[in-house]
Amino acid sequence: MGEHISVERTGDVVRITMDRAGRRNSLSGEHLAELLAAFRAVAATDAVGVVLAGDGPAFCSGHDFADVAERDLGGVQELLRVCVELMRTIQSVPQVVIARVHGVATAAGCQLVASCDLAVAAEDASFALPGGKGGWFCHTPAVPLARSVGRKRLMELALTGDPIDAQTALEWGLVNRVVPLAWLDSAVDELMARATRGSRASKAMGKQTIYAQLDRPEADAYAIAAEVMAASSQTPAAREGMAAFLEKRDARWVD
Amino acid sequence: MGEHISVERTGDVVRITMDRAGRRNSLSGEHLAELLAAFRAVAATDAVGVVLAGDGPAFCSGHDFADVAERDLGGVQELLRVCVELMRTIQSVPQVVIARVHGVATAAGCQLVASCDLAVAAEDASFALPGGKGGWFCHTPAVPLARSVGRKRLMELALTGDPIDAQTALEWGLVNRVVPLAWLDSAVDELMARATRGSRASKAMGKQTIYAQLDRPEADAYAIAAEVMAASSQTPAAREGMAAFLEKRDARWVD
Amino acid sequence: MGEHISVERTGDVVRITMDRAGRRNSLSGEHLAELLAAFRAVAATDAVGVVLAGDGPAFCSGHDFADVAERDLGGVQELLRVCVELMRTIQSVPQVVIARVHGVATAAGCQLVASCDLAVAAEDASFALPGGKGGWFCHTPAVPLARSVGRKRLMELALTGDPIDAQTALEWGLVNRVVPLAWLDSAVDELMARATRGSRASKAMGKQTIYAQLDRPEADAYAIAAEVMAASSQTPAAREGMAAFLEKRDARWVD
Repeated sequence: MGEHISVERTGDVVRITMDRAGRRNSLSGEHLAELLAAFRAVAATDAVGVVLAGDGPAFCSGHDFADVAERDLGGVQELLRVCVELMRTIQSVPQVVIARVHGVATAAGCQLVASCDLAVAAEDASFALPGGKGGWFCHTPAVPLARSVGRKRLMELALTGDPIDAQTALEWGLVNRVVPLAWLDSAVDELMARATRGSRASKAMGKQTIYAQLDRPEADAYAIAAEVMAASSQTPAAREGMAAFLEKRDARWVD
Repeated sequence: MGEHISVERTGDVVRITMDRAGRRNSLSGEHLAELLAAFRAVAATDAVGVVLAGDGPAFCSGHDFADVAERDLGGVQELLRVCVELMRTIQSVPQVVIARVHGVATAAGCQLVASCDLAVAAEDASFALPGGKGGWFCHTPAVPLARSVGRKRLMELALTGDPIDAQTALEWGLVNRVVPLAWLDSAVDELMARATRGSRASKAMGKQTIYAQLDRPEADAYAIAAEVMAASSQTPAAREGMAAFLEKRDARWVD
Repeated sequence: MGEHISVERTGDVVRITMDRAGRRNSLSGEHLAELLAAFRAVAATDAVGVVLAGDGPAFCSGHDFADVAERDLGGVQELLRVCVELMRTIQSVPQVVIARVHGVATAAGCQLVASCDLAVAAEDASFALPGGKGGWFCHTPAVPLARSVGRKRLMELALTGDPIDAQTALEWGLVNRVVPLAWLDSAVDELMARATRGSRASKAMGKQTIYAQLDRPEADAYAIAAEVMAASSQTPAAREGMAAFLEKRDARWVD
């Protein structure tokens, strides 16, 4: 599907695999562009879920310094524009996106985990914002991290650059499950199955509305959510769901 | 006090009980209107606390699909307007509001728990946003939930529709206490007693100011809170509290 | 260095010690002014870290009621202006600031803990917003607390006025470490060493950018963070960090 990634659909779920194992799946400009194109392509399909995975020993080690070091200001601005666009596209596609994390997820790789809707980690996974102990601070990775873990925990990650292990990531709310590496795929499949039940159209609107209402004063968030909730009550999916409940039968989703 | 609720005052605390056990205390338009009227009526009294409870096997199962299914867009907009107004009134009344949760608290019922100032749950309680596996997504319940638990945990609740148990709700910060069902009332009473000490006028202003400053950039939040904190320093309650401290005596609150 | 504080530099780290043990380090107007001046003075030095500590049995017991009780509205407004300025200066100085907490940290003392970048607590430490059970509510302390712990936990602290212990503060994300009192200084030193590695200029910009992007919708936060991240990629520190990585050598930081 690309030079740096592979894309495979099984049933209703697409797996996008970062495939630069030799570079620990670091995010060169080309790699980012391929990931962004892949998510955009999946968005237009009837798939219900996306698994984001990494080939080789690491999930993703963040930006590729060999790529960044050659760029001037405009070049890095463009690189980050694509990177941020990727993170936000993960949140705007209609599919449920689960990060399948093994090995290290650092810097923009950790940002990917924080940006996916859900995350399942192997026991060996670790998470870090290493810019904190280097020369280029993890400013943008700190954006979704700050919205996933508490403030003091964010500052510890960002200032020390030290990794946390999978169990700590679970306790801090950065991932939803931690399982032995051998069970990682089945745990992802199990969570995906539970997260993709019901009406696909309803779920897509739901996910997108949540991201729209986050981080706003509650009155503003309600203004967004109540509008969508009222409108969505008139959709075929909502009508079918309520009818099935009232008639004590299984629902038949048409979208 | 109404067809769907009962309201009882004991000492300084009012208990509002959802009383539609046969419908698992689901929130029809009439039920919502009675709850809203009850909170508004209590707000005008000198009660210091409100306990929100549910009769029968469930705390509250959310909107009543029999009611929703009959409504057009305007009808659902009106239903949700009252529902959101109820949630926000719980936060604006001068009383401390504690949710007393047993059995299921789902959809708008879970939203009620998230909207109360404090919550005490029985060990058998469970919490869910079931719209995620149906046809009508829990858009508005996700608003206060998003402000109570972490982002990944919110997405898991909202996308899977699966319940979490009381212990998980405690660890995620959705409730303040979990106790055996037999001790639920005494645990609510104990927390209410501790949460209603001191000046009633001071506490009411405190609660309202917290909700006003939440979800804003810190500078904006300080602009609100510092203004109120300075003004409140000149109140009889603040003066009495400081005098009692300095004179090493018990305070006598007049409001 | 002042009447109410002492300031001592050891290597690259400055320790600011609240030195009003007889008043449990309460924050009179003069004490606040000295703390603010001390942080501003340190900000202009090449120190990399600041430890905020308290002498005597308590870390800090909050505002000094003997001082507040004598002030009219304008006087309290001025007091709080300095207090809020202190809290925000802690976040804007280029140094990493760690609260070294033993004994009680209450009201504005608890606010100090929440406002420092990182916090290490002795096992005997306790944290409270006691205004909730008095006559002068902890409006401004609730601002950074609301941004450190969950909403239900904030409301419990604010409404009951009861203290939480150090272990609870750790679980709620208010502090980063809890250690026996005898190990408190070494734990602070160890965390400071890890939090101050790398380029000082990069870290200072990183810390300041995090506080700028917090509490905003994610798109707004990214607009801030991506701009800074691109600009900082062109700094000597970022260039050196990337070169060292690519050349597999240790970095030599010049700023």
